[in-house]
Amino acid sequence: MKFSPLLTQLIESLRCLPGVGPKSAQRMAFHLLERNRQGATDLADSLSKAVNEIGHCQQCRTFTEQAVCDICSSPKRQASGLLCVVETPADIVAVEQSGQYSGRYFVLMGHLSPLDGIGPDDIGLDQLESTFAAGGIEEVILATNPTVEGEATAHYIADMAKSFEIRASRIAHGVPVGGELESIDGSTLAHSFAGRRELE
Amino acid sequence: MKFSPLLTQLIESLRCLPGVGPKSAQRMAFHLLERNRQGATDLADSLSKAVNEIGHCQQCRTFTEQAVCDICSSPKRQASGLLCVVETPADIVAVEQSGQYSGRYFVLMGHLSPLDGIGPDDIGLDQLESTFAAGGIEEVILATNPTVEGEATAHYIADMAKSFEIRASRIAHGVPVGGELESIDGSTLAHSFAGRRELE
Ligand SMILES: [Zn+2]
Ligand SMILES: [Zn+2]
Repeated sequence: MKFSPLLTQLIESLRCLPGVGPKSAQRMAFHLLERNRQGATDLADSLSKAVNEIGHCQQCRTFTEQAVCDICSSPKRQASGLLCVVETPADIVAVEQSGQYSGRYFVLMGHLSPLDGIGPDDIGLDQLESTFAAGGIEEVILATNPTVEGEATAHYIADMAKSFEIRASRIAHGVPVGGELESIDGSTLAHSFAGRRELE
Repeated sequence: MKFSPLLTQLIESLRCLPGVGPKSAQRMAFHLLERNRQGATDLADSLSKAVNEIGHCQQCRTFTEQAVCDICSSPKRQASGLLCVVETPADIVAVEQSGQYSGRYFVLMGHLSPLDGIGPDDIGLDQLESTFAAGGIEEVILATNPTVEGEATAHYIADMAKSFEIRASRIAHGVPVGGELESIDGSTLAHSFAGRRELE
């Protein structure tokens, strides 16, 4: 004997969440059924809406339910001539919180990782190249994570930028090496932006 | 600037899950959107179905989408004259896996906890009393957890049972004190059932 079919199905479904094993899935299912059915209903709605409506911004690739996100739609951002390249949508939030930057973004949704078969097109570099070609960008600020892959990705994009005569800079180290950009406080990030240096 | 409205809503909704803070909710949302949209859709369906259809068995109070669960519907279980009282639906699964028991169950969905305002009616003891009154039960086996509250609950129910001239027994200790029934292996539980003693 196990749980009823629907309860078994709920426990199985919860395991699609990262870091959720059989025991926590069971605990979550019981908690929702016993104490928070409204929360479960809201979560079901949010999941359906998110899956059906959230895609990637046509310009910067961040997650959004609009064709073009708010930042990309801003004429002031467009006019800045600055493009900041980050690995994930969460990195945009971290950079915005530093208050040091008011240009546009480009979200790679990852980084180059040849061993995992992740090449330039998988992180949207074909699209980034078109953006470079379209003009209007004076400097690309490389804010990928300070990991081996993040550095390699930054250098790859810097080379691309130079072929379009666009200045490429890397945010200053100050961000602890091996750390993840999204967990760094605003003032450290502000420091990193101010101390950025041009890549040779 | 934060995430888009729908993404913000998804992250907020995921926090209704126990043990999920802002960072893990964000990680879960990104994971689903980037790598497992089918999983998210399935989870939304499972949550809706579970919330709409899963209730409590009219007889034993376990979670089920049927009016009466499979175990309670079994004539052989009914004829056994045995009723095992447990704290949660997961405990039924643990006892069944020990292979030592083939009677009915009653699920308290908790335990007596006067300090938290949880009294007899909150754990269905009014319903259990009606079950006792209806007859057909020769022995009630108290398999609540070996905690202070679990022991107090067992003794409370034993007193109730005696007023109906029903034998009350407590599963043997062998289950480590302070542990939770649902995480005990089958052979330890089998031992506990075999060594049960009548409560004076
Ligand atoms: Zn955008
Ligand atoms: Zn039942």
